[in-house]
Amino acid sequence: MQNKITTPAQRRQALKDRLIDLAGAMIDAHGIEGLRARELAKSANCALGAIYNVVADLDALILEVNWRTLASFEEYLVDANIGREPRDATEELAHIALLYLEFAARNPHRWRALFEHRMANGTGRPDWYIAAQSHLFAHLEPPLRSLRPGLRMESYVVLARSVFSAIHGMVALGLDEKFILMPLPLLREQIRVVTLAMAQGLDARMTSHVK
Amino acid sequence: MQNKITTPAQRRQALKDRLIDLAGAMIDAHGIEGLRARELAKSANCALGAIYNVVADLDALILEVNWRTLASFEEYLVDANIGREPRDATEELAHIALLYLEFAARNPHRWRALFEHRMANGTGRPDWYIAAQSHLFAHLEPPLRSLRPGLRMESYVVLARSVFSAIHGMVALGLDEKFILMPLPLLREQIRVVTLAMAQGLDARMTSHVK
Repeated sequence: MQNKITTPAQRRQALKDRLIDLAGAMIDAHGIEGLRARELAKSANCALGAIYNVVADLDALILEVNWRTLASFEEYLVDANIGREPRDATEELAHIALLYLEFAARNPHRWRALFEHRMANGTGRPDWYIAAQSHLFAHLEPPLRSLRPGLRMESYVVLARSVFSAIHGMVALGLDEKFILMPLPLLREQIRVVTLAMAQGLDARMTSHVK
Repeated sequence: MQNKITTPAQRRQALKDRLIDLAGAMIDAHGIEGLRARELAKSANCALGAIYNVVADLDALILEVNWRTLASFEEYLVDANIGREPRDATEELAHIALLYLEFAARNPHRWRALFEHRMANGTGRPDWYIAAQSHLFAHLEPPLRSLRPGLRMESYVVLARSVFSAIHGMVALGLDEKFILMPLPLLREQIRVVTLAMAQGLDARMTSHVK
């Protein structure tokens, strides 16, 4: 054991990491509702008060879990592109949409936590979290630039969010047994059809009245 | 008072209607989380047990409120079309999308309750509720029929749900201060641009590779 933990700061960080791991596992198993401080302390084998020694509250812990979820989706996107032939922008948008669906379908609770979590104390999300979200939307910007060249930079940022939101809606309602449940193969086909249509309609070479 | 309530069945119905009204008002004020049986009984000036005499549980009451929300959105859609010139299918889709945004923006809690409510006891939603949802999606079918004629009937049902989901995603995330908050005029513009693009891309006259 060469890297034996020694300083109090290192011990705090180690506990924090362990708590994020365990909170992530609890969310994976039962969703955000399943996260309870008492059970968490028990799993981490620490006192209840020790949790609040390393994170401000459960909200802060959920944000850390969500940050990791965003990071693992990023990784998933990047891995899926390694060694791939470049696609045209229309296909690229559909490809990202389908990767988003797969990620959500494989990690349903973790993924829902990104959207269901509301800060209980009314504070906003920290900048590092907002930056991670923005980074995610940015993956949609290159294909949008190809489809609609010549817009101002901010327009791509906004359009990427809108296109992401539309894809998210199809994924969220399509996977929701309460609202519009579609079998996964049908949902894949629908997301592909609608995302391709969206991309084609945005294509400046094909359209006139979309400004 | 010619319609004086006399029979026990009428009294039960009157209490049920009053509870649905009050539950709706509580949801309007504080969202689904704000609905509490004890407060409801107090507002309705009835015993706590009397609630469970007319509805199975709070879930059943929320479903009734949600059913009314679906019905009032239907009414809103129909009213907005009275005396209007017929639009082409592309404009019609964008028009419905923008009405959906306005309705959600004006009734934020009531509208969120449609999506946030999960049956606590694991039972499914009753048929009458599912029918009301389906009726709503059906408004998207006529423009989709014009855009892509010749599909099988079920295909329009599925496509209407997918297009609705995409529009819903833009509305839900665009109005969500936690995720992607857009000022309402920008959100309107984005929903119009993306919905028109989606419609144009679906237009069989314009596209080839979308099957």
